[in-house]
Parts: sequence; C-alpha cells; structure tokens
Amino acid sequence: MSASPVSADEDTDQERAPQSQPMLPVALDAMGGDRAPDEIVEGARQAAALGIPVLLVGDPDRLGDVGDLPIQPAREVISMHDDAAQGVRRKKDSSLVRAAEAVRDGRASAMVSAGNTGATMASALFRMGRLPGVARPAIATPIPVPGGGYTVLIDAGANSECAPAWLVQFAQMGSAFSRLRFGVADPRVGLLSIGEEASKGNTLVKEAHALLASGAAGPNVKFIGNVEGRDIMSDAVDVVVTDGFTGNVALKALEGGLKLVIGAIIDVMMSTEETRAASKVLLPALAPLADQFDADTYGGAMLLGVNGVCIISHGSSGPKAIVNALKVARDSVQGGMVEQVKAAVAAGGVT
Amino acid sequence: MSASPVSADEDTDQERAPQSQPMLPVALDAMGGDRAPDEIVEGARQAAALGIPVLLVGDPDRLGDVGDLPIQPAREVISMHDDAAQGVRRKKDSSLVRAAEAVRDGRASAMVSAGNTGATMASALFRMGRLPGVARPAIATPIPVPGGGYTVLIDAGANSECAPAWLVQFAQMGSAFSRLRFGVADPRVGLLSIGEEASKGNTLVKEAHALLASGAAGPNVKFIGNVEGRDIMSDAVDVVVTDGFTGNVALKALEGGLKLVIGAIIDVMMSTEETRAASKVLLPALAPLADQFDADTYGGAMLLGVNGVCIISHGSSGPKAIVNALKVARDSVQGGMVEQVKAAVAAGGVT
Repeated sequence: MSASPVSADEDTDQERAPQSQPMLPVALDAMGGDRAPDEIVEGARQAAALGIPVLLVGDPDRLGDVGDLPIQPAREVISMHDDAAQGVRRKKDSSLVRAAEAVRDGRASAMVSAGNTGATMASALFRMGRLPGVARPAIATPIPVPGGGYTVLIDAGANSECAPAWLVQFAQMGSAFSRLRFGVADPRVGLLSIGEEASKGNTLVKEAHALLASGAAGPNVKFIGNVEGRDIMSDAVDVVVTDGFTGNVALKALEGGLKLVIGAIIDVMMSTEETRAASKVLLPALAPLADQFDADTYGGAMLLGVNGVCIISHGSSGPKAIVNALKVARDSVQGGMVEQVKAAVAAGGVT
Repeated sequence: MSASPVSADEDTDQERAPQSQPMLPVALDAMGGDRAPDEIVEGARQAAALGIPVLLVGDPDRLGDVGDLPIQPAREVISMHDDAAQGVRRKKDSSLVRAAEAVRDGRASAMVSAGNTGATMASALFRMGRLPGVARPAIATPIPVPGGGYTVLIDAGANSECAPAWLVQFAQMGSAFSRLRFGVADPRVGLLSIGEEASKGNTLVKEAHALLASGAAGPNVKFIGNVEGRDIMSDAVDVVVTDGFTGNVALKALEGGLKLVIGAIIDVMMSTEETRAASKVLLPALAPLADQFDADTYGGAMLLGVNGVCIISHGSSGPKAIVNALKVARDSVQGGMVEQVKAAVAAGGVT
C-alpha cells in the first residue's frame, strides 16, 4: 500500500492543503437529510474553508447564501419516503441523480449525501455503474471499537439477499477499505455467524465459509473464520462480512441499544443535584469516548463496488458530520479507493 | 389470561411458599456451565431454602455437599465443545439427557441448564418431544428495556434457517410467553426487518409479513408490522419475531456491544482518584439500571414449543442466576406455560 491511512482528523488538513494537483470538487447533495438544505450548506462552507473543493447540488432558489461555492442546479428532491429505484428513475432532475451524474461525467470526484440511503445507492449504481467484476456493490460501515479504532461491517444494508460468492467480494472490498481508510496493514476478515465452527450458521454462511476458507478471496484477504455478534464492536476482527439483511439488523441493534442505554445512564447522572455535580467531574474524562462514538465524527458509510466514491452520511447530519464526510470523500479520492477496490476484486478467484 | 405475571422478584416468595399442592421438583443440570458443579449446587441449595423443590442431576461423586437435595445420578457430561445432536445421541447417561428424561417421565416439572445450549435444546426436543402442531421449537430470550420491562426476542438461536410459517408460530408462542412471564396483556408483535414498510426485507421476512398481516397467527396475536434492530431494546414492541440466525446475531451484538461500551465507561470512571470519588456518588443511583441489565437477574431464556418447561441459563451462571432460573421454572410450571403455548399455537390458522 502506497497510500497513507485516511482519517477525519483536522490535524492533517494543514499538510494536505497545498496540493500540487487540484482535485475535482466533491458533489454534495444539498437537499438530502433531516437538516437540509441549511445545515448541509453550512457544512459545505466549513469544508471549503479547510480547502476541500465542494460542488453543491440542489435547487439554487432554496440553498440560501452559499458564498463562493459552485452550484449544480437540480430542481427535484427524492425524499426519505420515496421508493429508491422509482425515485431515481422518475426524478431525473433530483439532487441525488445530478450528484451521481456529476461524478460520472467527470465534473466531480465523489458524491456525498445524507438523504434517502436506498436512493443514494440506486443513483450511484445507475449513473456511475458497477466496477468491472463486481457482482453487487455493498455498504461498508465503520463501527467504533471502545478503546480505539474501527471495525468495518460490510454489507450494512445494500443487499437484503446474497449469494455466497458476493460475500467473498465483500471480504475483498472490505479489506481494501480497512487498509486505505483505517491504515490496517493486514485486516483480519471474519464471517458473521452464530458460532465459531465452520459447521455453524445458515446455508449462505456455510457456503461462504467454504469459499473463503479455500482462498477464493485471493492472497490479500486474511480470513480468520467465523465471528459472532459480540465480536462486531471488539478488536478481535477488522472486517466483518455479512449479508445486507443481517448486517443492517445488527448495525441498528447496536446503534439503538447503545443510544437507549447511554440515554438511561445520562438520565441517572442528571437526576439529582448530587449526581449532576459528580457527573461534571466525569464528563471531561468521558469526552474522548463520546467523541469516538459520535456518528458525526467518523464520516459516514461508503458504497463500495461502484465506479466512483459514494459516501452515505446519516440522516440527521449537521455541519460537523458533513465536514467529516467531505474529508473522507476527499481522502478516498486522493488515496485511490476506487482503484484499490477494483484491484482487490480482480485479485480473487471468484467471478 | 387468568395467570398472574411471572417474575424473578424475591418479594413474591413469601406469598408463594405455602403452596396447597406441592409441585414436582425442577430438574437442574448440575454439571452444565462454566461454574459447574459447585456454584450450580450452591444455587440449588439457595433456591431450596426459598421453598423451590429441586432435583439435582449429575454425578453424585462430583457434586460435593448437596444437603437434603435429591440427586438423579448421571455419569456423563456433554461439554460446551461437544456437537449437540451427537452428544445427546451418544451420551445417554449425561446430566442433560437425564434431566430431560425426568421431565418426560413425570419425575420433574421442568428442566434448567447452564450448559451447552444446542445440547439442551436437543435433549428437550428428543426426550420431551414437540407440542402438537409446533413446527419448530424456538428460544425466547428476554431483552431488558432501559427504563423498565423486557421485550421478548424469538427465535434467539434455535433455528438457523426458517420457513415463513414457523415465524407465525414464533409470534404465537412469543405472545403467550410475554403474557405469562411479563404480564403484558396484549403484547405488540413486530417482525424484525430492515425497514418498516411491508416491502422491506429478505424473502423470508416478506412472506412472513404477508402471513402475519393476513391474520394467520390468529386473534390473540397483535401484529404491528415490521420493526428494526433499533427497536429490539425499546418499548415500542413487546415481542420481536425473527429467524434464529438473525436473532442470535442481534442478541450477541447487543450483549457484546453493551458489555464493551459499559466496560470502557467503567475504565474511565476508575481512571483517576478524582473520577473514582465522583463515581462513588453515582454508583448507588446506577445500581437499579445495572441490576436490570444483569443477565443473572432475569432468569434465562426459554425453549418454547417442547412438551415441558426448559430454561436455558447463560454459561457463566453462578448461584444468583441459578436461583432466578429456578424461580422462573417454578413460576412457568405453576402458571401453565406449556399449556398456554400449546393453546396459542392451536389458535392460529397455520399448520
């Protein structure tokens, strides 16, 4: 790997700012997400101030003051409630479709959206197309590991039904992603199942296990066997491979469960004057942990296997989340994420 | 429902102790679990002191001082690493097989084990048999809801591959369990998927959704549609229906993720003299929450659909967990859990 690890740290911006070759702007869906367009545009302005070129995609009449940022006009919006494929087919002048077209046509280097996830995937797939040899694009989602680092969950929801060979490609794409984005030299890849033995799991998992154990993913995938739900957030594995149904359920169970439990802990901390005073002492010490688990920090999920960088930020993204998503988009472009994923899939023996 | 809710609260023991009709003892696998036999026997002794009749099943030479407790001799042990079905077939004199036989033969009212989960299921299934009309027994696991109460996750791991009609029965059995064990009068049943719309999910979920929405589970199942991973630990649903693969992954993801995050929070609390002092103030306020989330408190999972009460306690069960599992076993017997599950399955239109 010649590329250095990609992070959303602000520290690196100063070094990166003086690029010898200016990059194409990142197309940002200004109409997508619960806080669009105002807070999305604000995020774009902050990112631009850090030297990240941004192309706002949306309705110029609704974007407000965008400063010097260029706008790709798009008069339609695919809402959170629209059917993904239908929305993309019917709303050809939507911000999502126009953003994907900007990448396809070489006017943008990447796309970022906090809008309808299904429609973001469909736009990227229909307009950018799949990479050669990729059976199905998949969503790679970073999962924070308490104590430091991230595991990569792939597929976190793109494909609700999978063939075993697709999971082999998820292993390849997830490994490339873990290397480039988190700097893991030799990512350990685990197959999500309900027991460590090869005999455990459903038919899909048993067949995928056989393929992965036989080296079908090629020499660059370090398959460590089955992992279980409890390993997703642990440092025992770097890439957790699963179908998009199981991955999405597990991801949302973790997100939802942690939110509810941490909310209950905070309620207790704020319940009396005495506990509030004690919590005041603890909060600074808890801040790094809270920051690591803040979805705004780590810059969103990525759709891997399409012919372009496509970042999916969460629906409630505000300026901070957008800035970090744009940083990850920039770093992924500069690090050659698409080329790495393409090479990873080509290195395997499965077609 | 005539039965009152079943709980593992100690408060109710005084009222329950003077039973007019003595019940058959609960067969306890004294050899199962990481802390067997010593701590399992200790739990049995504590439960017996509370008036719960217990039949210890295991090797008399290895059980130590069992006080007045009766022993059902069993010279073999199915270990955590044994294959479940093979273990049950080959080790006919194992504590698990003998415990299930004691229920089958009318010498025990229920069985409890903290040992090999697969072998516990296989013993119960092979020796007690399925209830009439039940396609597949399933594991119902209580999930604590921050703020109070429990949702029921079914199937939490018995069936790694399912047919849609089985999920309809899981809805029926899970509803009966929620009513009897947690006193929920009209449990809301959700189908675990990756979106609320009926069109979301894999083929299994879409077909199960169609059956449940058409009323196939009968009038006693209140189907509220699809739920997502984030709802498992919420108060938005009482019974979460899923296949055993997805259920087991989600359960272990939640257990593992919470353990890791809470461990990281505790590390921070204990990191300096100042934070330790502040934490000392908070801990009493956090105790009820910690207790609710303590797997030892809520008495284990239950295998539903077999012709007898079968409680699966977690592998690291100590005396407290065993006492609570025995209480749930007793209460399930006295409340008529098996009869309720049988009636629930008979009330549906699916065979």
